[in-house]
Amino acid sequence: MVDGSACPCPAGKIVSGATSMLRNRKNIRIEWGDCDPAGIIFFPRYFAYFDACTHALLERAGCRQRDVQSEYGILGFPLVDVRARFIVPTRYDDDVVVESGITEFGRTSFQVQHRLYKDDVLAVEAFETRVCVALTDEKPGNMEAKSIPPEFVKKLSGQG
Amino acid sequence: MVDGSACPCPAGKIVSGATSMLRNRKNIRIEWGDCDPAGIIFFPRYFAYFDACTHALLERAGCRQRDVQSEYGILGFPLVDVRARFIVPTRYDDDVVVESGITEFGRTSFQVQHRLYKDDVLAVEAFETRVCVALTDEKPGNMEAKSIPPEFVKKLSGQG
Amino acid sequence: MVDGSACPCPAGKIVSGATSMLRNRKNIRIEWGDCDPAGIIFFPRYFAYFDACTHALLERAGCRQRDVQSEYGILGFPLVDVRARFIVPTRYDDDVVVESGITEFGRTSFQVQHRLYKDDVLAVEAFETRVCVALTDEKPGNMEAKSIPPEFVKKLSGQG
Amino acid sequence: MVDGSACPCPAGKIVSGATSMLRNRKNIRIEWGDCDPAGIIFFPRYFAYFDACTHALLERAGCRQRDVQSEYGILGFPLVDVRARFIVPTRYDDDVVVESGITEFGRTSFQVQHRLYKDDVLAVEAFETRVCVALTDEKPGNMEAKSIPPEFVKKLSGQG
Repeated sequence: MVDGSACPCPAGKIVSGATSMLRNRKNIRIEWGDCDPAGIIFFPRYFAYFDACTHALLERAGCRQRDVQSEYGILGFPLVDVRARFIVPTRYDDDVVVESGITEFGRTSFQVQHRLYKDDVLAVEAFETRVCVALTDEKPGNMEAKSIPPEFVKKLSGQG
Repeated sequence: MVDGSACPCPAGKIVSGATSMLRNRKNIRIEWGDCDPAGIIFFPRYFAYFDACTHALLERAGCRQRDVQSEYGILGFPLVDVRARFIVPTRYDDDVVVESGITEFGRTSFQVQHRLYKDDVLAVEAFETRVCVALTDEKPGNMEAKSIPPEFVKKLSGQG
Repeated sequence: MVDGSACPCPAGKIVSGATSMLRNRKNIRIEWGDCDPAGIIFFPRYFAYFDACTHALLERAGCRQRDVQSEYGILGFPLVDVRARFIVPTRYDDDVVVESGITEFGRTSFQVQHRLYKDDVLAVEAFETRVCVALTDEKPGNMEAKSIPPEFVKKLSGQG
Repeated sequence: MVDGSACPCPAGKIVSGATSMLRNRKNIRIEWGDCDPAGIIFFPRYFAYFDACTHALLERAGCRQRDVQSEYGILGFPLVDVRARFIVPTRYDDDVVVESGITEFGRTSFQVQHRLYKDDVLAVEAFETRVCVALTDEKPGNMEAKSIPPEFVKKLSGQG
């Protein structure tokens, strides 16, 4: 079981300055099927976009989900906390850009920031706090928080 | 860190005490197709559940989306802010209960709290801040914030 | 690899008469977030509904996905073929009923029929052809078709 | 109301030879969140991909959804029939290519073929039959089939 602590990056921060971090940009087309009867995006779809952006960021750092599983025994990076501000609505056929980067590392968790721009205007800002989990041997299907491999931190800090 | 301010309905609060508010409970089955390769729910699906819970709450108060559109000229209630804490993971075939209620009314916005329970344990807590919008005449497709009808507040406060 | 045969229930049919089969009914509310900017359901969502209906049918027969995995070593029932006719559009806030049943069993596959009714009018009809698969030992992650357990056929034929 | 006829491109075919038609290719990454607990794609997501591919095809022909609405008074192209064969499973982090083209035009409907390739192997083939609809004046929200503008056929036939 992951600990769903509200402030997951406390005391023992490893890295804090967001400035030097690796960042990734992803172009996204807002699709017809992602929009609701008001003609604007159905907001849960943003979180699916952002999840894909986090995977793209990890891949860019050389930590593709598939490889991370086989190399480090990490099952995945489920969320313990997420928040988002929706500033400007987006509509189908809009082309947007999402800029993603890690803003904080804890021992077992990290925070990802996503900024979605429409015509160079910040439309959405979101923060995901994710924990690194592995399967535990005790009970099948159970997960436990796992220390983030130092190599992993290095790569995502843009020093890998 | 985003300022996603904890109290998004400041100054002109109309109602603040959450205790007397109307609440709604919704039973949800976590479906196979809502879960990811780690076997747990893909978190954006929670927000789709919660959106349905907000609609169910509004309907229970006599403010069904369809009617609200024809009676009040309200296009919908898009989100301006959302946050969630994921405390216990849920898996396919889990039966959960979501308790929803409005915790604050502003002039044009309101905050909905959702608490998702699995076997009576709080698994997820989320807060949506939504604004009431109408189509503006100036430009087709454009929306503008609109004062929440007092009748609407009354109904959702459980006094309707 | 599953065999993606176009006519998946050929020669060795075990059961053919659909009349005696177990059927299941599921009430579904078409949600705002399942609809597109034209105000009608975004059709891929129908297939998510139908997938949930197939799981509900299996569960009713005593073959819940979770148990099937642990008892029979079956990974799941991926689709090899699907078709649907959309006869009457559905909109958000519509309450519909889906009637599901198995219409044919092959050696490793079966066909599920779903009929979605809106106000007692047939709105959508769909047929899913699914195969029973298990993990193969040869390569991690690979799946292979597996004979449907006779007990399973019996239960879903309403004789369990 | 659209007529949900099973064979929607009958008698009065306008174009039949698929060879000369405009085709479009779209690169898609299978995302973690599009996959299910068996580690393969949750099949309804394919239909969301294909819907986006149809929009991309229309856009390429100069018939972007947005413009089509304002120029021709066309509300959209809802489906009346869809079928798909799933030949090879796809997994998260797979990069696939979808080739899309129109294979038939009827008076008010057309058929789109999608072929999804993984490493140059045909993994999925799907056919969508869509009708061209407009809002009818009689009752708000009601749609009626509308003749496909000849200009539109020309463009999509690659002669525009």
